[in-house]
Amino acid sequence: MDVDVDLSPLRDHLETEGLDGYLIDDDASDADQRYVSGFTAPDPYQTLVTQDGVHLLVSGLEYGRASKESSADSVSRLAAYDYQTLVAEHGAYEGKSRVLAAFLEDHGVDSVAVPRNFPTGTADGLRERGLEVTVEPEGIVEDVRATKTEWELEQIRATQRANEAAMARAEELIATADVDGDGVLVSDGEALTSERVTEEIEVTLLRHGCGLDDTIVACGADGADPHDRGSGPLEADELIVIDIFPRDKETGYFADMTRTFARGDPGEEARRRYEVTERAYEAALETVAAGVTGAAVHDAACDVIEDAGYETLRSDPNTETGFIHSTGHGVGLDIHEEPSVSPSGGDLAAGHVISIEPGIYDPAVGGVRIEDLIVVTENGYENLTDYRVGLEPTAE
Amino acid sequence: MDVDVDLSPLRDHLETEGLDGYLIDDDASDADQRYVSGFTAPDPYQTLVTQDGVHLLVSGLEYGRASKESSADSVSRLAAYDYQTLVAEHGAYEGKSRVLAAFLEDHGVDSVAVPRNFPTGTADGLRERGLEVTVEPEGIVEDVRATKTEWELEQIRATQRANEAAMARAEELIATADVDGDGVLVSDGEALTSERVTEEIEVTLLRHGCGLDDTIVACGADGADPHDRGSGPLEADELIVIDIFPRDKETGYFADMTRTFARGDPGEEARRRYEVTERAYEAALETVAAGVTGAAVHDAACDVIEDAGYETLRSDPNTETGFIHSTGHGVGLDIHEEPSVSPSGGDLAAGHVISIEPGIYDPAVGGVRIEDLIVVTENGYENLTDYRVGLEPTAE
Repeated sequence: MDVDVDLSPLRDHLETEGLDGYLIDDDASDADQRYVSGFTAPDPYQTLVTQDGVHLLVSGLEYGRASKESSADSVSRLAAYDYQTLVAEHGAYEGKSRVLAAFLEDHGVDSVAVPRNFPTGTADGLRERGLEVTVEPEGIVEDVRATKTEWELEQIRATQRANEAAMARAEELIATADVDGDGVLVSDGEALTSERVTEEIEVTLLRHGCGLDDTIVACGADGADPHDRGSGPLEADELIVIDIFPRDKETGYFADMTRTFARGDPGEEARRRYEVTERAYEAALETVAAGVTGAAVHDAACDVIEDAGYETLRSDPNTETGFIHSTGHGVGLDIHEEPSVSPSGGDLAAGHVISIEPGIYDPAVGGVRIEDLIVVTENGYENLTDYRVGLEPTAE
Repeated sequence: MDVDVDLSPLRDHLETEGLDGYLIDDDASDADQRYVSGFTAPDPYQTLVTQDGVHLLVSGLEYGRASKESSADSVSRLAAYDYQTLVAEHGAYEGKSRVLAAFLEDHGVDSVAVPRNFPTGTADGLRERGLEVTVEPEGIVEDVRATKTEWELEQIRATQRANEAAMARAEELIATADVDGDGVLVSDGEALTSERVTEEIEVTLLRHGCGLDDTIVACGADGADPHDRGSGPLEADELIVIDIFPRDKETGYFADMTRTFARGDPGEEARRRYEVTERAYEAALETVAAGVTGAAVHDAACDVIEDAGYETLRSDPNTETGFIHSTGHGVGLDIHEEPSVSPSGGDLAAGHVISIEPGIYDPAVGGVRIEDLIVVTENGYENLTDYRVGLEPTAE
């Protein structure tokens, strides 16, 4: 990975706190570890940051690849610390603690800061062996990751291009479907289901080098639950929310985009909600700039939605209809990362990549959500999304 | 999820230790949490097991789906504990601790066991608020998960059928490719690369409802590093290792299978290694039965490979060639789970699903690995894999 990682805030923290190192013990799902080590692996591995370098501890299976691909200054193998013997003697739990303690000792480390999600089993095991383990509560690595380098922006743009190809394929399927006598969309002689559209989205993404775990293609009442993935036949005269958040399989960088479509006439109230959501999205975008808080951007979206007579979590923290989520979130090696564009969102900075995605939900009407991915600049933002906003689906 | 989860070993542990509950704080990547709660979500959520039920704590975004889909006895929303207000007042770290402490209090819980991978930040935060947090070192939930119910076996079989379709597509591409003057495999007028075969495997899996993060299609020296995913043109007269481990997108259950192919003549030494690997695979399979240890099954594979004159990690813990990994691992909601078929592997039990996958590696020759997925029975095993073993690729 060619990320030019600036770990100085982390090293400053270690110096201030009088700690020898920062230790991560996780697997491929940990974006911080991937960022710091320039490496990812399906099984757990350990990354140690000291003042003089980044040091990996991996299984023999990963050793060759870690030595070739990682950005670490040194790579050690579990076998060098008699891992198998220690596990056989002391069990997986204590065996691992012993290996890690020896690895830390090799690097002159007696005290470590660890991330909040560091395994309690490992922390308590190291503490039992006399090491000092302190949680780093601020999420320093997450903060560093929030500001993207030019190289990272290129990766996110590439993922977003794949996202647009997938959205275009989904929109085309909806635009060109027939409508049967029951109002069900039909394509190639069969009902066009959420599942079929999802499959076409995912195949398109795979052809562009991206994968994903989940896609949302949610019609009618399904779309009123923002995390419902949707199922069953898509129908005319209903709102259809499509939210795609692919990840490049090679680089690991995500993109995120949502569009809402309707074939036929979803009704006056649905069209009004679409128009209000679009205005909220525009108001949020117009507010974005370095130095503005994520909370202020969220407020701008809430203002529009509340003025139009809908609830938000700001006007009623317990509402289950209206605008029932945050305006956005950071996107990078995690699909949800810093900064937050929510009531708790702090200052935005140039280089932050965030989603802007207001929506209005009600099971009786369906869901509307419009989402672009943008990068914050000194005076505003650059939109990383190149995709038309519009309720009526069209085929290219 | 219809898993008939037997949490009695966990509840027995709580009673023995005098603890009120078992708490998981993780996201979709945590198979234990998915198993216990019958629920999965992209963002972190919490699962509490007490003597009288399973209780979820989720964000408002997940509340609707969790109430509908999870197997929990109760579902609570973060908003019910003023999450946003507490985070705004105390920061994300302490805000979350306060919410969790209140959630535990609501369920009458003063002391919890937690899994080894429980976040240290959460553990220390709860401890600061006076709760007792003890790591459960044995992996009781993982142990429960190791023995599959009939329903779970059906899900794994379904994933394995998708795996076989994908392997057949890969084998067909290799079998039907032309060979150009440089010995490169050519299909549709272009070099048949690892990347192209991987893409066809993954599209086939998607069409069968499965996804995956990684696939291995590794030719020549690439295949000698068991975790190298492979890249570039596939060549005739070289060993090609194909390892596919898909996951059903709906149920979350994995399958795992490896075959090694060669177009043309990979040479006498490569053919010998294939033959030895096949014998090691057969010896390991013949050893499997309930009550036999994973270590004994691993030894059976090592015996064959060492007798044939190759190193194993048993004969030389530092070897980088020969048989340089374990014979197998459990497969279920995680691709690597209990039980282990390695030097530390304990008793196998009926219902354990394991891979049997010996291999022999050397950069000078390439890699050979043969892997089936099986379920342990009282007197032996049932092979969940329906795919021919053979070095020469054939098209259906």
